[in-house]
Amino acid sequence: MSINHPTSAATSTAIARLVRPRSVAVIGASADPTKTAGRPVSYLTRHGFDGAIYPVNPKVAAQSLEIGGLRCYADIGALPEVPDVGIVLLGAERAHLAVRELAQRGTAAAIVLASGYTETGEVGARRQAELLEAAGSMRLLGPNTIGLVNVTDRIPLSASGALEMENFPAGNIGVVSQSGGILGALLSRAAARGIGLSKLVSTSNEVDLDLADFVDYLADDPATQVIALYVESVRHPEKFRAAALKAAAAGKPVVAFKIGRSEAGARAAVSHTGAMAGADRMYDALFRQVGVIRAQTFADLIDIPAALATARTLRGNRVAVLTSTGGAGTLVSDALGVAGFETPAPDAETAARLRALQKGDHAALDRNPIDVTLAGLEPELLRGAIRALLASPSYDAVTIIVGSSALAMPELMADAIHDCLPESDKPVLAYVSPHAPHVAAVLNQRGVPAFSAPESCAVACEAMLAASRLRTLHDDVSSPVAQVDVSDLPAGSLDEAAAKQLFARFGVPVVREVVVSDADAAEVAARQFGERVVLKMLSTTITHKSDVGGVAVGVAPDALRARMERMREDVRAHTGSAPERFLVQEMVQGGVELILGTHRDALGTAILLGMGGVTAELFQDTTLRLLPASGGLSRETAMSMIRALRTWPLLDGYRGRPKADIDALADAIVAFSNMAASLGARLVEAEINPVFVLPAGDGVRAADGVVILDAQRA
Amino acid sequence: MSINHPTSAATSTAIARLVRPRSVAVIGASADPTKTAGRPVSYLTRHGFDGAIYPVNPKVAAQSLEIGGLRCYADIGALPEVPDVGIVLLGAERAHLAVRELAQRGTAAAIVLASGYTETGEVGARRQAELLEAAGSMRLLGPNTIGLVNVTDRIPLSASGALEMENFPAGNIGVVSQSGGILGALLSRAAARGIGLSKLVSTSNEVDLDLADFVDYLADDPATQVIALYVESVRHPEKFRAAALKAAAAGKPVVAFKIGRSEAGARAAVSHTGAMAGADRMYDALFRQVGVIRAQTFADLIDIPAALATARTLRGNRVAVLTSTGGAGTLVSDALGVAGFETPAPDAETAARLRALQKGDHAALDRNPIDVTLAGLEPELLRGAIRALLASPSYDAVTIIVGSSALAMPELMADAIHDCLPESDKPVLAYVSPHAPHVAAVLNQRGVPAFSAPESCAVACEAMLAASRLRTLHDDVSSPVAQVDVSDLPAGSLDEAAAKQLFARFGVPVVREVVVSDADAAEVAARQFGERVVLKMLSTTITHKSDVGGVAVGVAPDALRARMERMREDVRAHTGSAPERFLVQEMVQGGVELILGTHRDALGTAILLGMGGVTAELFQDTTLRLLPASGGLSRETAMSMIRALRTWPLLDGYRGRPKADIDALADAIVAFSNMAASLGARLVEAEINPVFVLPAGDGVRAADGVVILDAQRA
Repeated sequence: MSINHPTSAATSTAIARLVRPRSVAVIGASADPTKTAGRPVSYLTRHGFDGAIYPVNPKVAAQSLEIGGLRCYADIGALPEVPDVGIVLLGAERAHLAVRELAQRGTAAAIVLASGYTETGEVGARRQAELLEAAGSMRLLGPNTIGLVNVTDRIPLSASGALEMENFPAGNIGVVSQSGGILGALLSRAAARGIGLSKLVSTSNEVDLDLADFVDYLADDPATQVIALYVESVRHPEKFRAAALKAAAAGKPVVAFKIGRSEAGARAAVSHTGAMAGADRMYDALFRQVGVIRAQTFADLIDIPAALATARTLRGNRVAVLTSTGGAGTLVSDALGVAGFETPAPDAETAARLRALQKGDHAALDRNPIDVTLAGLEPELLRGAIRALLASPSYDAVTIIVGSSALAMPELMADAIHDCLPESDKPVLAYVSPHAPHVAAVLNQRGVPAFSAPESCAVACEAMLAASRLRTLHDDVSSPVAQVDVSDLPAGSLDEAAAKQLFARFGVPVVREVVVSDADAAEVAARQFGERVVLKMLSTTITHKSDVGGVAVGVAPDALRARMERMREDVRAHTGSAPERFLVQEMVQGGVELILGTHRDALGTAILLGMGGVTAELFQDTTLRLLPASGGLSRETAMSMIRALRTWPLLDGYRGRPKADIDALADAIVAFSNMAASLGARLVEAEINPVFVLPAGDGVRAADGVVILDAQRA
Repeated sequence: MSINHPTSAATSTAIARLVRPRSVAVIGASADPTKTAGRPVSYLTRHGFDGAIYPVNPKVAAQSLEIGGLRCYADIGALPEVPDVGIVLLGAERAHLAVRELAQRGTAAAIVLASGYTETGEVGARRQAELLEAAGSMRLLGPNTIGLVNVTDRIPLSASGALEMENFPAGNIGVVSQSGGILGALLSRAAARGIGLSKLVSTSNEVDLDLADFVDYLADDPATQVIALYVESVRHPEKFRAAALKAAAAGKPVVAFKIGRSEAGARAAVSHTGAMAGADRMYDALFRQVGVIRAQTFADLIDIPAALATARTLRGNRVAVLTSTGGAGTLVSDALGVAGFETPAPDAETAARLRALQKGDHAALDRNPIDVTLAGLEPELLRGAIRALLASPSYDAVTIIVGSSALAMPELMADAIHDCLPESDKPVLAYVSPHAPHVAAVLNQRGVPAFSAPESCAVACEAMLAASRLRTLHDDVSSPVAQVDVSDLPAGSLDEAAAKQLFARFGVPVVREVVVSDADAAEVAARQFGERVVLKMLSTTITHKSDVGGVAVGVAPDALRARMERMREDVRAHTGSAPERFLVQEMVQGGVELILGTHRDALGTAILLGMGGVTAELFQDTTLRLLPASGGLSRETAMSMIRALRTWPLLDGYRGRPKADIDALADAIVAFSNMAASLGARLVEAEINPVFVLPAGDGVRAADGVVILDAQRA
């Protein structure tokens, strides 16, 4: 059921019925509303759910016949109609029985709250498989979930105290969390800040419906403008990718906080690429490629959506900071500056307009922060100042500092700001300087995102800039998969010569070289390649050849015989056996050394481009892109990778150096990615290290490489 | 009065009287306690100040004779005794008159609240000078300050509503802020979190008493354990340095949040060093050298002191995360992991001890986060688990996750944790998952620092590790200033040869080279220096010689004549005139290229060491140390600089490279820093770029350099 392609129409329909059901059966409902099992019926009733509620409990049915004034049924078979949703409150030992009955009746979706499944070990995993089998074509949310709340329509489908929804302001942020506890924490924090939500879902164990399915649903949901995700792991990357791109196309930013950031890479790798591309960098690449904005701190997962929920547009990096209190304005402009935003002084016209508003002479109106002093708290003056700043061509956004003098009259201030919003679609933010959650709540409710950390203002602005680029995002167009016959390839590790022959088949230019086993042949080859050549041992097992004395650079043909003998001895001393075959290579000089590799984990296959050489290795200047669903990287993506390197200037004529052959490098990246796409799961690892990028017009040369092919899939 | 050396004994005495006065005169007091000018008397009375309060106001004195039941005096001369402190409530036009009278009577210190001084421009700056003159030997706090509150002894010396002190819990954190508004915000935030403070000072314009004076005072204050600073600018670096080191020696961590981080460097510099050493990096160096812990976000300025206030000791990086709720535990351990902390599973003995506490089988006690499930909220079980973790040899600290189920009984939980504290001095922290400031407040009040951001737990742990190293901190022992005669040096920019001669005088090894003006002399010189040499133009005005074609590397002596001719033409083409003098240099090969420079700003003179070469330039791998008060850097400091480079492995035998001559490099850094110390303010800029560090035993060679000497001070 959990298939790795876009969410289907049938799934969408089922989710729509799950989120906005006309009828809900509550299996195992208790008549005592203070008990957990009593909550779902109580919550639904209290919030005025206008569909049918069917409590199911044989014991209660036998005794009192009703729960909270609703008729209680003895079993699912006795229900008067097929419910849209079944909330299953039974424990893990019995939940599958109810699931099977609900499925048999044709229920659209069931929510299984019980824990005791995969999260507890093997026995639980078997139970979870049983649950899925019992559901048949009915969809499942959970198990181990705290459920789902449709705030828009005020429909709580949960037994959790955290989702009681007493004080949830409705709004346009949809939240999907892979942890129930975290969903509760997010809600509690958002509610305290007056930040409105639309739909809340805890997907938890994701035996069926997952994160991606709900992103897909929320992308269509008219009540949702921003999607916030708490991610432990993306189970179906292609489905997630499709859903995220759909949201982006709908102009709905997706913001994700992803844990597991400090985990070591999934497996030990032979190549450097493996060491440089960890699990977290793969997520970074995935998120960047599909326009998901990554929250760097847990607080950002509320702060960023709060800013994006206004759907106002940040077009540049110039921010006006309007304050009536010293210190705090500087604090915010400093945080903005650290994040790369500018806080220029008002232009002459704006300064004049600001000055005309005031009588006193203490106000500093020709600097930024723009200090209107305490007099600025007078609502008419505040309105005038905000209007002047919104109209100013010097600013792309306005941040208003709320000081302690506003504590007593948050509504007055919030209303004054709110009144100005229709005049411009530039973002208007607020920073609340003292501890004053109630002030922030009033502002948020009036459509002014209000933050209690100066750094959050900067983070919000960064996210708004990223969101403004969303509509132009498109999925990587894949380059067509090359038609190259690879049926002859052996399994396992290829030696350097074979690896480069494979790269060359797909169109990656490689250095000229000859495989030899004696000095006579080596000398003959060397004389074709010029004054000096490279001599290397050839091996399928030793990857770091230079570590065992198996590489000699700049050898003159005359010296080759002696050098080969010494290499035999050096390698024997290091490894216990002397190499039998050698490579004689032309020596490439004057280029920039890069590294180009593949990395595969559960998220897919990525291409890594990095600066080579020892210094660059210490700085790990690398960039990563996941392959599209089919085919290799597009040329545009290859170019974006090259430009993403911090050492890009070295390729671009830094300090009078010759410009490198960027075109040839982009072609090589595309060709290499095509090889990875063609070989698919058969390719365990591939790496070119180094690839020399020569001056413009001279191309690139793969000078060394590693390829490991899967024996199982050969 | 503001002298740049350690706070004097007389100053300490005056501050002690200011912070804990026996008598306070309030100049310009109003009889209306709702007015700003009515507040100081009202605050003092309300908090039971047991010294004498003397309101001074000629108008009130003429009418009612008293304010709040206290006799009101017509003027300062009429006071029955010399007050320890005068709070001056008059405006900027008249404040100096009161200050003069207070000084004449022998008052220890006056607090001037009025604004309208340097912060407003030139007229204000003159007023401020007048104020200082009027004070004579009396000490001044302010002007433009919101005052001072001694929370320990409950003495508010302020007219600010923000310092009303209604709900300030007393504690051991002293706060000094250069902004009154920020002090108010900090207080409001700390109070809401139940974090206790000892003394609060807003130094603001710092016409006299400054940040450093109060750090010095708080280092001696028995009620203060941690010092928190909001810093706009350190006015007297040497005094600050002495005060911070005194606090460190007393085991009192100083935590600073410094704004101005995004400011561009103070001046355009000729050397690379100037571009790489900005104002903020100078503060970083200052803080690091004197053990000041830098808060990276504004919230950290409360969170870090809250953690350090417990005076518990973090000895390692292994943290137990104890939770009764899913999700949040993972969130905290992830944040800890990102910051480099480990969260290992319990050892067998600890796991057994934890298992013995519980009856159920759902609890995950052999992993970390250690999940005691909801049953763990039972206080006895919680106590048992905390005790087991504190006793475990596997952990250096314990972080407890507080979930929403604890909302209803924060005291129960806080008490349970509190009870365990005496059994160990390992840090115990709490993370509060839902929005629950009241829960955090209760925990903080029980001595358990409680955070609402998972990242704050990690930041707190990092700061505790830094604090544990404080007692071993000592100021840089300066290397003795070299006795080198520099009276013959010209003013202005030295040419490359003269610059290197200066470096060599102080003991920095330089490349062999000869200044020539014709090809014959060049050839003679070149033949001494080996097969290939470097040819450079010589100029006092052109620093980036290679940009104008003025550098040729690897020239054979035979080719020198032609090359020199071409260089004349190239440089003429670029600059309009051909060079007349040249340098013929030995060619250094096989070393690592570094850059060594000086940078001077208001904080002092710094030595910068960085990796050279183009790649390294893009990564700006540099480190900075300020010179001690007198003399150059110690050898130990020089070694610490070398090891601080990210490219340090390149010097230390990375991947089979030869180890570089670290000893010679350290000697060169010391010698170069000695040159900077000797020349003092006469040295505008000096830079060696590159200095080649050869393999161990072969030394270092300065290969190029810049020196600019001040014409005024020659």
